Amino acid sequence: PEPLTVRQQNSGIRRIILNNPKKRNALSLSMLESLRENILTDVDSDDLRVIVISAKGPVFSSGHDLKELTSAQGREYHTKVFHTCAEVMTLIQDIPVPVIAMVNGVATAAGCQLVASCDVAVVTEKSTFATPGVNVGLFCSTPAVAIGRAVPRKVAMEMLFTGTPISAHDALLHGLVSKVVPEERLEEETMAIAQRVCQASRPVVALGKATFQRQMAQGRDAAYATASKVMVDNLALRDGQEGIRAFIEKRKPVWSNKAEKAHD
Amino acid sequence: PEPLTVRQQNSGIRRIILNNPKKRNALSLSMLESLRENILTDVDSDDLRVIVISAKGPVFSSGHDLKELTSAQGREYHTKVFHTCAEVMTLIQDIPVPVIAMVNGVATAAGCQLVASCDVAVVTEKSTFATPGVNVGLFCSTPAVAIGRAVPRKVAMEMLFTGTPISAHDALLHGLVSKVVPEERLEEETMAIAQRVCQASRPVVALGKATFQRQMAQGRDAAYATASKVMVDNLALRDGQEGIRAFIEKRKPVWSNKAEKAHD
Amino acid sequence: PEPLTVRQQNSGIRRIILNNPKKRNALSLSMLESLRENILTDVDSDDLRVIVISAKGPVFSSGHDLKELTSAQGREYHTKVFHTCAEVMTLIQDIPVPVIAMVNGVATAAGCQLVASCDVAVVTEKSTFATPGVNVGLFCSTPAVAIGRAVPRKVAMEMLFTGTPISAHDALLHGLVSKVVPEERLEEETMAIAQRVCQASRPVVALGKATFQRQMAQGRDAAYATASKVMVDNLALRDGQEGIRAFIEKRKPVWSNKAEKAHD
Repeated sequence: PEPLTVRQQNSGIRRIILNNPKKRNALSLSMLESLRENILTDVDSDDLRVIVISAKGPVFSSGHDLKELTSAQGREYHTKVFHTCAEVMTLIQDIPVPVIAMVNGVATAAGCQLVASCDVAVVTEKSTFATPGVNVGLFCSTPAVAIGRAVPRKVAMEMLFTGTPISAHDALLHGLVSKVVPEERLEEETMAIAQRVCQASRPVVALGKATFQRQMAQGRDAAYATASKVMVDNLALRDGQEGIRAFIEKRKPVWSNKAEKAHD
Repeated sequence: PEPLTVRQQNSGIRRIILNNPKKRNALSLSMLESLRENILTDVDSDDLRVIVISAKGPVFSSGHDLKELTSAQGREYHTKVFHTCAEVMTLIQDIPVPVIAMVNGVATAAGCQLVASCDVAVVTEKSTFATPGVNVGLFCSTPAVAIGRAVPRKVAMEMLFTGTPISAHDALLHGLVSKVVPEERLEEETMAIAQRVCQASRPVVALGKATFQRQMAQGRDAAYATASKVMVDNLALRDGQEGIRAFIEKRKPVWSNKAEKAHD
Repeated sequence: PEPLTVRQQNSGIRRIILNNPKKRNALSLSMLESLRENILTDVDSDDLRVIVISAKGPVFSSGHDLKELTSAQGREYHTKVFHTCAEVMTLIQDIPVPVIAMVNGVATAAGCQLVASCDVAVVTEKSTFATPGVNVGLFCSTPAVAIGRAVPRKVAMEMLFTGTPISAHDALLHGLVSKVVPEERLEEETMAIAQRVCQASRPVVALGKATFQRQMAQGRDAAYATASKVMVDNLALRDGQEGIRAFIEKRKPVWSNKAEKAHD
């Protein structure tokens, strides 16, 4: 049988493809576990620089598999599904490489949460985004964690209370996605961003991503204390020194791309 | 004499109309108390599904009644006014049904705060929004609590420091309102959203609204812990089970719409 | 030699001009110290009402002077640079008068952070904004503190991971700047905002600015408690009383503009 997700990696770019179009790429427990494995495999390897998540078929992802959420499955099983889902969504933000969603189609409920959780999202004009759980008696409360932190509160509220889809254009306007492109340019525009990430130093990007998450959870003054120390640490990295030197010598930097412990 | 506010209810939709156009629907202490009563009356009744707040006349609301804020009234009275105002604004977010502002005209100071505090706001193209307190020596510090949490910081700052009104279009752009419509379609578009809320299950909407407020005040990981548990509770609700069953059986769900204690 | 920054003051409006166009107005340690002094000089004087920060030349500011960040300078020096930078950025938000950025050109890295830190930013159509540190091996982690609090998370992430500039239009869309104007109207539009601030009462604006920063760092209910008390204090100010009286008497208020201790 076809695997639920496909993982490919080439020149630092890992592609993860949701591969269950017949089931509208529902985030079943198996799909979530497969996705988690695809993300975590060799995630600390110097060879991995960026992850691109896309989907086969006209639906990016329709969210949880509702057949797994009947009362027959029971509370413990439900708990496992939502626990695994939250784990995947937060992993995306906590791993040391940027994660880009490449979306060409409908993303609803936990599928919309997946887009909201990625660092960058490039989407086609025809893509739409919705949290329609309220229509089936299951309010999208976990998607709301990611979406409520991505868009203004009123935008989130209207999506959650009505389940009405928003267009790619409105998603861009409100910060849910990063870029809207014509369908024929989706691959190219997404890969251009992935390649820009590959041209940067891996440990520098890793330090930057981790620091962003950390300082955004702090008050302003604590955030500056955190980030100021990180800047000094960054300069002490081999790639930090090389970058500054190359800039002054007006040449291209040559990154080590190796993780190393920051100077204390 | 005309009542300060009018309350009507029909098929689950409660209309509250600010009814003092001669005084530009100023949020005097009596008006705030009337509004509070209109909101709280039978708010836990299964018959109430959504509240729509609108206004009579060309001004939605001009904010506090400045005649109540002279030094003659005294510090204790002023304290009561602002306490009651904050109570009404937070009530709107804390009651178990969504509150929609339907705005056709000017909303300033606490009137703008009222729009910012509603879950959804549908407004006409001619509506404008401002926090002009600075011009009369009373900086809009309490409106800023709601507005600062609705729009980007720089938008809030410019409104607060200059008192200059922003257009409906800019209010939409920045997340202060949910939808801008031509005047002749205001009623229809607002009621369409209200009716969508009525088609959902009341306890599911109530759980979703309360959870949204709760998790947004938490850090990401705590928010996911909160929301994941709520999803499991939601599934255990009678209407949660019915919704999933109806989806699988490809039929319309039949909600109980009854509040019930979630399974523990 | 030319001074690094120029400070001029006229009718309550202080202009601070970054004055090192040959070095692209780099925020060297000396430039930051000069800026800090320009901001702090007589900042509590009743004569100062608003600060406008602009720059000479086609680059508003290119951020830190990378020559100061080589390993030769050493960790202690680097620490001092970032400490001073954070001090200037937070000062802008903590002083009692509004600070307006007037931008006509490129603002990158700490230069972009400076724009993000100001209360209001008026910029020309040709201005662009970027955080390209990642390209030289120094992730813009301190700029991210200000930018991450100004724009939606995905916008910040894409800027930080790719270093790609965003246009003035996109900066407006996402809340990084307040207004985009044609180059020939930059001065006029900026000064119109500065003059509006001058028409307000100084202690009222000071109280409002401080309260905004304070309540935005609190949860909603604590924020309302803070702001409600401030409203009552504001009314007890001489200028608060005068403003309300003038409004009721339909005349222009005459501000004292004197700081005074709020009634307890």
